[in-house]
Amino acid sequence: MPHPKSSVEPASSADEASVIINAMAFDLPRYLRERAVLIEHHLAISVPESDGPTGRLIEAMRYSLMAGGKRLRPILALAACEAVGGPTEAALGYACALEMIHTYSLVHDDLPCMDDDDLRRGRPTNHKVFGEAIAVLAGDGLLTDAFGLLVGSTQSAGIPAQVIIDTIAELAHACGSAGMVGGQVLDLLAEGQPLTQQELEHLHSKKTGALFVASVCGGARLGGAGSAQLQLLRDYAAALGLAFQITDDLLDVEQATEHLGKRSHKDLQRGKATYPSVIGIERSRALAHELAQHACQALAGFDSRAEALRMLAGFAVERNL
Amino acid sequence: MPHPKSSVEPASSADEASVIINAMAFDLPRYLRERAVLIEHHLAISVPESDGPTGRLIEAMRYSLMAGGKRLRPILALAACEAVGGPTEAALGYACALEMIHTYSLVHDDLPCMDDDDLRRGRPTNHKVFGEAIAVLAGDGLLTDAFGLLVGSTQSAGIPAQVIIDTIAELAHACGSAGMVGGQVLDLLAEGQPLTQQELEHLHSKKTGALFVASVCGGARLGGAGSAQLQLLRDYAAALGLAFQITDDLLDVEQATEHLGKRSHKDLQRGKATYPSVIGIERSRALAHELAQHACQALAGFDSRAEALRMLAGFAVERNL
Repeated sequence: MPHPKSSVEPASSADEASVIINAMAFDLPRYLRERAVLIEHHLAISVPESDGPTGRLIEAMRYSLMAGGKRLRPILALAACEAVGGPTEAALGYACALEMIHTYSLVHDDLPCMDDDDLRRGRPTNHKVFGEAIAVLAGDGLLTDAFGLLVGSTQSAGIPAQVIIDTIAELAHACGSAGMVGGQVLDLLAEGQPLTQQELEHLHSKKTGALFVASVCGGARLGGAGSAQLQLLRDYAAALGLAFQITDDLLDVEQATEHLGKRSHKDLQRGKATYPSVIGIERSRALAHELAQHACQALAGFDSRAEALRMLAGFAVERNL
Repeated sequence: MPHPKSSVEPASSADEASVIINAMAFDLPRYLRERAVLIEHHLAISVPESDGPTGRLIEAMRYSLMAGGKRLRPILALAACEAVGGPTEAALGYACALEMIHTYSLVHDDLPCMDDDDLRRGRPTNHKVFGEAIAVLAGDGLLTDAFGLLVGSTQSAGIPAQVIIDTIAELAHACGSAGMVGGQVLDLLAEGQPLTQQELEHLHSKKTGALFVASVCGGARLGGAGSAQLQLLRDYAAALGLAFQITDDLLDVEQATEHLGKRSHKDLQRGKATYPSVIGIERSRALAHELAQHACQALAGFDSRAEALRMLAGFAVERNL
């Protein structure tokens, strides 16, 4: 498959018409469902079952990876790829790598020495089923294999080598000590401490925001985005990521454990600063909506192929799960 | 810096003479010392101290990363780069990435839920100093940042994009579920179980061998190695890795904790199968030497620039630490 960047053609008027019709009739629940199915199909292929000697490790990796969830990061990657006119297949392996990394972070986060959670997506957490040692290693395996999958799949898809390298560099930065792992440490150290709104925003920009940005920008880059598009999509993703996190904080306060599929009110119990605890519930809700709007404004120059991204900004703050 | 592959020139007779003189006078202890200093200098730059909010994470990463050790994997990468005529600088970032990955594996391996070790390189283990949560995250950070360093440093060194991609692919495969992490799981599951020599070899080929092979082949690839050279170096590294592991098993039986800087006799205490326990001390010693010899034979077609690799094969089995 040639890289989309080098094969962009002016859209025919028939194509344009179908794009407009799609936008008018955009059915987000259906889009989310279909994309989740596509991603889960490719996850299942990318981390195949094994009856070899390391079968127990693979089983533990798949237990958490195939446990459902919104698949929001991979869906964002695919939607961003499409928003710049790239074919879905260009970002599919990357999308799966993102979900593997997100899953590894949850498995390690749930460990007794971290958040000590027993329940995730309505099921016992990884270490409850496989033991702590295997859970640590399942996380390590998911993280490492994600980089392998990213390289292998983008090469097979014919993405230019330099684009692959830029994607890996951004992903590693987003997930490492300057990004997600750094954010986890900030989160740990902040337990029981009062935080300002600014400190909380900084924490979340690393802990969850960085991977959102990498999801959107990586997907777009693999779809052939130029640097101006990438900058706009970076703004979109940063606002979306924060809106998503504030909504998570609100859901933790408002929802029961049975509905969330993970322990609710746990932020309060662990003395974690949250948006509702720092700026109140009403202001948190208003801020989340402002951020979603800001995210959409960043997409103003994109055509109707960015409709999924626009709808996802609304979804991030209006979901109840 | 142009990639060495595209700038290989026939060596002048003056160069050849100096290479021969170097080989005759090869001073391994000095070579190891100088290389360790070079690597430690670059590790310190690559993971710089930080007084920012994530300073505690960086401190934990550096605590284990800068704790000394033989630096054997990075030294092998540099030696392999030089063996094929590449400049040391081409593989320096990769060498540091290897040490970061080796260090992450030790930090996670020492956790209470894994080998539960209190002592490493003569100092308290990471989780004893920083707590388990930070130790898990320090390991995660080292692993992820290693991929970032590999990409950034090889790009700066002017390595062709495809060579960088091949190096990342091999490293991810060597460290993930099919390599090191898979080997760790085999090691865990084998505790208290009798193993055949073949099963033990399979375990070690993943647990330690895969990273040795990636060290040597990655270093050589970045130095401009062709596929025939890579195949020979793969044989060299696989034999060397196993020889190194058998020697580790022997040292665990023979040496005191004070000398090793880590708890000795721990294999026996944990019911782990080792070469001495499976085939006896004398046969283990003989096998380690055979493997070192086999490793050197794989280098028969290389010139005196491979002298460091030859000497390192001897070192792997004759060291007392």
